[in-house]
This record gives sequence, structure tokens and C-alpha cells, in this order.
Amino acid sequence: MDSGELPPLRRMIDPDAALRLVLKSVTRHPPQRLPLHEICGLQLAEEIRADRDYPPFPRAMMDGYAVRVADAAATIEVVGEVAAGCIVKTPVREGCCLEIMTGAPCPPGTEAVVQKEHVRRSGSQVTLPKEIKPGCHIAPRGSECRGGVVVLRPGDTITPLATAVIASTGLETVLVTRRPSLAVITTGTELVSPGSEPAPGQIRDSNGPMLVAMVRDLRIEKPLHLHVSDSEDEILQALNKVAKYDIVLLTGGVSVGNHDLVPRVLQDFGAEAVFYKVRQKPGKPLLMAKRGSQLLFGLPGNPLACHLCFHRYVAAAIRLMEGKAPVLTPVSATLMAAVQPKKGKTYFLAARADRADEASNSWRLHPLHGVSSADVFTSSKANCYAEVPPGCSEIPAGEVLLFTWIGAAPWPN
Amino acid sequence: MDSGELPPLRRMIDPDAALRLVLKSVTRHPPQRLPLHEICGLQLAEEIRADRDYPPFPRAMMDGYAVRVADAAATIEVVGEVAAGCIVKTPVREGCCLEIMTGAPCPPGTEAVVQKEHVRRSGSQVTLPKEIKPGCHIAPRGSECRGGVVVLRPGDTITPLATAVIASTGLETVLVTRRPSLAVITTGTELVSPGSEPAPGQIRDSNGPMLVAMVRDLRIEKPLHLHVSDSEDEILQALNKVAKYDIVLLTGGVSVGNHDLVPRVLQDFGAEAVFYKVRQKPGKPLLMAKRGSQLLFGLPGNPLACHLCFHRYVAAAIRLMEGKAPVLTPVSATLMAAVQPKKGKTYFLAARADRADEASNSWRLHPLHGVSSADVFTSSKANCYAEVPPGCSEIPAGEVLLFTWIGAAPWPN
Repeated sequence: MDSGELPPLRRMIDPDAALRLVLKSVTRHPPQRLPLHEICGLQLAEEIRADRDYPPFPRAMMDGYAVRVADAAATIEVVGEVAAGCIVKTPVREGCCLEIMTGAPCPPGTEAVVQKEHVRRSGSQVTLPKEIKPGCHIAPRGSECRGGVVVLRPGDTITPLATAVIASTGLETVLVTRRPSLAVITTGTELVSPGSEPAPGQIRDSNGPMLVAMVRDLRIEKPLHLHVSDSEDEILQALNKVAKYDIVLLTGGVSVGNHDLVPRVLQDFGAEAVFYKVRQKPGKPLLMAKRGSQLLFGLPGNPLACHLCFHRYVAAAIRLMEGKAPVLTPVSATLMAAVQPKKGKTYFLAARADRADEASNSWRLHPLHGVSSADVFTSSKANCYAEVPPGCSEIPAGEVLLFTWIGAAPWPN
Repeated sequence: MDSGELPPLRRMIDPDAALRLVLKSVTRHPPQRLPLHEICGLQLAEEIRADRDYPPFPRAMMDGYAVRVADAAATIEVVGEVAAGCIVKTPVREGCCLEIMTGAPCPPGTEAVVQKEHVRRSGSQVTLPKEIKPGCHIAPRGSECRGGVVVLRPGDTITPLATAVIASTGLETVLVTRRPSLAVITTGTELVSPGSEPAPGQIRDSNGPMLVAMVRDLRIEKPLHLHVSDSEDEILQALNKVAKYDIVLLTGGVSVGNHDLVPRVLQDFGAEAVFYKVRQKPGKPLLMAKRGSQLLFGLPGNPLACHLCFHRYVAAAIRLMEGKAPVLTPVSATLMAAVQPKKGKTYFLAARADRADEASNSWRLHPLHGVSSADVFTSSKANCYAEVPPGCSEIPAGEVLLFTWIGAAPWPN
């Protein structure tokens, strides 16, 4: 990145400018070859062609009888059986037929498959219905897909149905845009692990488990989590341990306090700051840096601020690295309680969205204001963030705001 | 289940009746205790109370100085420093102050914290601003949450923020509604694995990889997949291997062909059929059975039919077992191409939904009709199923249909 374009550090930038800088810093990685059971949800990085016609043979689509159309209404002899997986060379001639199972290749001369339920069988003979349409219940060779045709393209999202397509064409592995690797370093001498009893003045680390949950929610299965004290040496050692990770999240130590060592240590580590401080609430003291293709985020130590910064900036970087649209489209909703904007700062309001009614696509937005950017209690049921533009006058209930869903949340009911 | 309420087997039932029978067959399992990093997205099965006040001490919310309000505009002595994690007993008296870091406990006598940026420091002295509001930048003890208060309830979805709440209160494990275990048994002598070259009449197994992808998409990480030939012995052996799984999916062999052994083998296995055949397209020959608390689904062998049956019935059972709302709320969308309903059957139409425009919550529905219920090529980009009620007359483009998202798909952009 041209440093001439960098906003001066220590001068706050707008949330949208910060997001643009994050996305501009993302390096796309070379694609990775993965087995079928690991590719669902990723973006394909190669073209897939049908290796043959599908179906590869005229296929029976019902359990029944392979017949000639001229035998409609006649009583004819059943001269054999075709199971799926078998090739039967006995031809179907007028006056005789073969019993055939769903999925089996039609024998030569088959003009239609008559459903088992539509014939009267008696011993080795069947009486056929009065009318038989040519081609009925036969999927002709190549009718689903012709050999050589491109069936999936680079950039396509691999759905379970796309996995079925890939499996059909005989591939056991495919090239995909890989997920980034991610490490979390929590800093703070005041933090103890969740299972420990805090001494006076201490608190338990909640950012570590929260960030690990957010990362796993985006399907990155094994984020590394290290915890270090407020010591330049310890932080630098931890950074050296995670030097190969694509994304590093540090929490705490990014403010202006005497023990906020992260900005300094990042410099010693050889990382170049991209921006520092964003005109937003919560999460003002957000720091972003780069070291080669590695992205480093200095997230605020206050849990709600840390959560918002992951939601808005880190998740966007992850999605872009995975070849996806980085920014989720906002959804409009009716505000259910008044909201007080912040002066000169965009307010990202944790909220719960639910449907206004079953029959419509309208959403209601229930604000979950915390008492501070450390308050995770009030916000624990949030499923979205509403964006409240800077301003002075209260936004009354009934107004429309835009929100984005948190995480890889399934559609809420 | 009272067998008197069962619809007669071998008589087709409606899709909604089938769904009701699936949900009625679900047994809720006893909750399971899991560590913090595995609970995200699950439903809590116990009450969580705050173990203490939060914050546990009056906490500085900014880097700055712990002062008395009476010292506004005065130049006073800095007599010490309080870092996060430390308890400093030096009281704050008029005429002096302590430097304090974000997150640190305020020393006795602190009336406000003045931001570092709002003072003029010179050596060991600082000049304070003209006005200092009492309580400014202090989070009083218990202001976020009082000790003993219920912070999360049984049935709450564990979001990453809820994980932070649980970690704060000192728990390393919690009781959650557990995910069901799931095994897939693909049947069919005609199937070879994706990496093999099919002999004439054979095809590659695409249902196995597809179902594994669908199961993993719902966050059940290790579904078992077995493949067996069309042999009663082999199918029964496979069933005995998966006797302890909560849900078993069998594919193929559920139709009326001579080699469709699944209904018979399920009976030998001691499973009681709940229903067989649903008035729907695709997926008519769906079979559902129960053995104790185990649910067994005989899914059709045609891939698209198999996919729809998982989407509509199996996924609902999984969600209910996990304590979630089993049925996703349908979304309304404008049909972008005409659709021909099926006579006497509900047609579940694979489709792609996208936004009508950025600013609204309206959706457009692009049908992805396959040429048959085996055609995964046409439908591979589907992200939803639209429900087309039984009927005879074409539904023109521009009409509104209801659809449900497929899988745990994130909100599409």
C-alpha cells in the first residue's frame, strides 16, 4: 500500500474509511486442493466439466416395465429383469418386455417405461395400459448434462448440491479458495482464565472465548488462542509464535494508557500500522496493521467493543480472503424503542431483530443498549448491529434503521 | 406413538402431515456438559447467574486520572499510578490524584476519571479541566450486572456474546442441549465411489458426499458414512453398526422395485414404520421409521429428491433435537419465471433467491427446474426451495411464492 494514501495515524477515521482500508490490505492466497467432505461453503477455484453424458445411458425413472409403445393394451411376456447397475443386452421387441428398476439402463429397443402400479401382472405376463407415451419415464442419455459441458465455475459457492455434481463427475478433491488461519492473543495482566478465581482488581478473560466462538462461527475450525501479560517481551514472543498465521487478533493494550504496549510491540515486530482509531462507538481504539500479507488487528479490550470490531472489520477481511462478498447487505427494520445517536461518531447498536409478522418480510429492531462498551450482559441476545449515524437528536421508535446480521447466523425465525 | 393415529402405510400422505409425524417422533435427549469453545450456536440447558457484581469494583473506563470533583481547574500532584489488575489503597484526596488505566479499579475517594487527553501534564503535576462531572468515566460496581442475577436462561441460544457472559461468570463448561449423532448408509449395487471409474450401467455415488455436506452444514461435525450393496444382509449389518446413532439416513432402495430392500430390512431391524410415501415432487418414496428413540429415514436414491427430503424433514428433526424451532419461517418472493404446479402433489422447486434491490427487503425467486429428480446439475446453485401448492394452471412470473432457505445458509447478499 502506498503510505502516501494512509491517513495520519492517531487521527480518527470514519468507520467506512476504516473498512475500505481493511479490505484494501487483504492479500488473496493461492487456492488449495481439498477433499469432498471439506469443501462445502467454500468458493470453487477451478472449472468443473462433465466427464461424460448424464445420465450415461437411457435411465429408467420408475420401477416398472421396459416396453414398446405398440404393445399398449396388450398382454405380453416378461422375458427378463434389469436391476440398477446391470447392463442387459436382451432387446425389447414387440410382444415382450423386461421388468426394470429405477436407475437401471434401459435395454436396447425400449420405447417407454410403464410404472409397476399401472400394469396387471399375472405369472410371467403383464397387461399394459391402453395408452403408452413414447419416452415415458425414460431419462435419455445426456438429458441432464452433456459430456464436456462446464457444470461449475471458479467463484461458485460449493453448496451440497454442487458437492453432488463434483462427486458425480468423479473428482475426489477440488481447488478451492482457502479459509484463512487465525490466531488470538489476549493481553492484560488483570485477566485470569474463566476457571480461575480473580484476585481483587482482576477479572476473567471473556474476550478470548468470545473471539474463538466468533471465529469458529465463521467455520474457521481451529483458531489458536494465546494469553500474555502486559509485557513487551511476552507480546513479542507471542507474535513470533503466530508469524505464519494469516490473521492475528490482539485484544487489549491498544489505548493510550502506560501499559498499552500493543502499538509499540507491533512496530518492533515489523508490522506497518494501517490505521489507528475509528470514529465509532463502541470500539474507538481499533488498530490495524500489516506485515507482509499478514493482517494484525489490535482490538479494544472492552468486550462489546471487541465484538463489534470483529463483526464489522475482521469478519469482512475473512470473507474477502475466502473469495466471498466481504460486506453483508444491510436489512431495514422498524426501530421498537428510541435511540440516542452519538455526537460525531457512528453508533453501532447491538440489537435483536425479529419478524414483524409471519406473512411479511418486515423486521423489527429491539435495541440492546449496554451500559458501557464492557457490558456483555445486556447485549448477549443480540443477533445484529444497527448502524446509527452521528447526530444529536433522538431517533424515535417507529423510524427505519439498517442493520447487519451478526456472524454466519442462520436466518432467524 | 399410538398406532391408531398412524396413517395407513403405503398410502401417500401430505407433506405437512409427514412433517408433523417426523416432529412427533423426536425424542429430546438429556442435556450434555460441554466446554466453552464447543457451545456456540447451541441452546443452553441450565440457568446462569452472575457469581458477583459486574464490574466487581468501580472501574476506570478511560486512561486518565482518578480525581476529586473539587479539584476542577486546579493544578495538582500525581501521587501514584493504578494499572488494570492492581488494587491501590492510596486514597484520592483533594489536591492530589492518581494516574489510572482503562479497566483498573478506582482507588478509594475517586469521584471521577478525567481523560488523559483532557489534562495538561507537566512533570509530576497535572492541570485539570474547568468542569468535572461526578462519576464521569467510572463504571460503578455492579452497574453492568448485580451478583446473583440470572444472566442466561435454559433455551437461550449461546451467541459469542453469551459465551463471553458465561466465561465472565467463571464457568468452563455448561449444560447444553446436545447435537444429535448421525449416520448415512448409502445403498445400491449400481453405485461406485466418486474416485472410481463406473462400469457400464453404474454411476458414482453423489448422495453420500451430498448428505455428509448437508449434515456438516448444520454443524454436526462427524457424520458416519457407510456404503452397502443391495443385499438384505449387508444393509442389516450396517444398521447394527449404527444402532447407537440418534438419526440414520438410508438412501436408495425405498421404492417398489424388486431390489428395494430397505422397508423390509428396517422391519427386521425392529424399526416401526411411521409413514411411507409423501404427496410431493420430488421425493415421493420417502420412508420414515423409529426404533426406540432412533429416527430412521429411507431417503429416495434420486439426488434431488434425497436433497429435498433432507432439507424439509431431516433438518427439521435435527433442529428440534437441538432445542431449536424446527421449521424455518418461509420468506415471500416474486417469481421471476412461470412455474407449472404438479397435479395432486406439492412441488418443492429448487430455486435461487436474491434481493430485488439493495434498499428493500424484497426477494426475487429464480426457478432452477431440474429435468428430473436426479438432475443436480441444473439445481446446483439453489439456495432455497419454493413451495408450489398442487394445481393445474401455470403460475405466471410476477406472482408471489413462499420459500425457505436451504441449510444453515448465512444471509445471502
